[in-house]
Amino acid sequence: MTSDPAAKYFSGKTTSRDRAVFEAGIAIGMIVHQFTGIPVKRPEDIELIGKVIENAVKAQPFREDAKIEIRIGDLSSSPGNPYSYTTLKTRHIDARIVVRYNNVRVVARLRYIPELDFNLAYIEDIEEL
Amino acid sequence: MTSDPAAKYFSGKTTSRDRAVFEAGIAIGMIVHQFTGIPVKRPEDIELIGKVIENAVKAQPFREDAKIEIRIGDLSSSPGNPYSYTTLKTRHIDARIVVRYNNVRVVARLRYIPELDFNLAYIEDIEEL
Amino acid sequence: MTSDPAAKYFSGKTTSRDRAVFEAGIAIGMIVHQFTGIPVKRPEDIELIGKVIENAVKAQPFREDAKIEIRIGDLSSSPGNPYSYTTLKTRHIDARIVVRYNNVRVVARLRYIPELDFNLAYIEDIEEL
Amino acid sequence: MTSDPAAKYFSGKTTSRDRAVFEAGIAIGMIVHQFTGIPVKRPEDIELIGKVIENAVKAQPFREDAKIEIRIGDLSSSPGNPYSYTTLKTRHIDARIVVRYNNVRVVARLRYIPELDFNLAYIEDIEEL
Repeated sequence: MTSDPAAKYFSGKTTSRDRAVFEAGIAIGMIVHQFTGIPVKRPEDIELIGKVIENAVKAQPFREDAKIEIRIGDLSSSPGNPYSYTTLKTRHIDARIVVRYNNVRVVARLRYIPELDFNLAYIEDIEEL
Repeated sequence: MTSDPAAKYFSGKTTSRDRAVFEAGIAIGMIVHQFTGIPVKRPEDIELIGKVIENAVKAQPFREDAKIEIRIGDLSSSPGNPYSYTTLKTRHIDARIVVRYNNVRVVARLRYIPELDFNLAYIEDIEEL
Repeated sequence: MTSDPAAKYFSGKTTSRDRAVFEAGIAIGMIVHQFTGIPVKRPEDIELIGKVIENAVKAQPFREDAKIEIRIGDLSSSPGNPYSYTTLKTRHIDARIVVRYNNVRVVARLRYIPELDFNLAYIEDIEEL
Repeated sequence: MTSDPAAKYFSGKTTSRDRAVFEAGIAIGMIVHQFTGIPVKRPEDIELIGKVIENAVKAQPFREDAKIEIRIGDLSSSPGNPYSYTTLKTRHIDARIVVRYNNVRVVARLRYIPELDFNLAYIEDIEEL
């Protein structure tokens, strides 16, 4: 069993599956609302931001893994123009988060879905081990 | 049934309960990482921020309700000192979010728990209607 | 003279004009990086967010006034689609900030400039009174 | 002269010194309101966040340099407790930003000042070259 001093605050109806899914949702909400807006100019900036997001996710409880890919197609390089930079937007982020609580593993994903024109957070897999 | 063009992106194992719990988690993550840091000086500021957070939660999918209370004990009033203001911190926020997805209603809470010295996000209730 | 316990930390070369301009810059940086990302659905949401931004600016030192207009052209209303909402972006914000430090008043502006395709922060006026 | 397509939007009274000071203020406002709130657990997390903040500052116009030091005294290591992490706060950040606009160089600083119990943004030096 996962050691969890906070368990007693949760409704008695809460299952391990609920806990894992809930934490996965919190992780996605954090990614979107903490990191979008960062000014970005060079490809190296992007790589480092991805790593920082992964670390931030993994700092929180019960996260087993995080893989972040950032794709900014329009990262321009007009060296003469001081205003040629962009900022990180949700649609640039492809995040895959794995949360484990007791015997349940949830894989959650955040990515832009062209068909919906929406940055969708969804559950890619749930395993009861 | 809730109309949901995004449903097909979720794993086939995902239940309505998972969906409701996941959205509740996203809402909490959003609250913490979007709103903390706002400079605050007057009691009126607090009330308005609470209302803005409620609206922001309710703008997102499947949220049925949101009640935000902000308690800042040390909101000082030293009119002569231009630096006497504070910023919104997670521990000031008591949030109660209700998400409904199909027949499942989840009540999630965010509040500072003195015993844990932690701003805990937890599930207060889950009902299958 | 403005009462200012922090004055001694500034370089002796710093003028009242520098102080006012510096604070105006901080205010603009705060607006952009604190408030963008808020989920928005209804016209009422926008009006309240504008008021909250004004209050946040005025909570900080030496701000004399703040007027925020938020214009979201594509605020859709598809009541049946739970994903039809947007998030506050820098280009939606037209901010006019007035800072006064001693005898200097600076008016700073943040708004989207179509010609530059850039959300420009600029100084609209500086008066030495 | 710095190439600057935005110059014409500024009041004709605006000097190069005003421009440099204004940009320094924006940089400080960005640092505080973009990066605070990031979950942090390990010393490596801190180092990487510092680098990401430096890159973000330098992505924006007319920044010549940025040095960020993050000091979190209470970064605990209770491996058994999933809730033992912290979040980046303004008082953890010591930032030194150098902006150059034409012949003017401004050094701005953000750091916690114990005497004021305030995270002060101030101008450390202004040089007209």
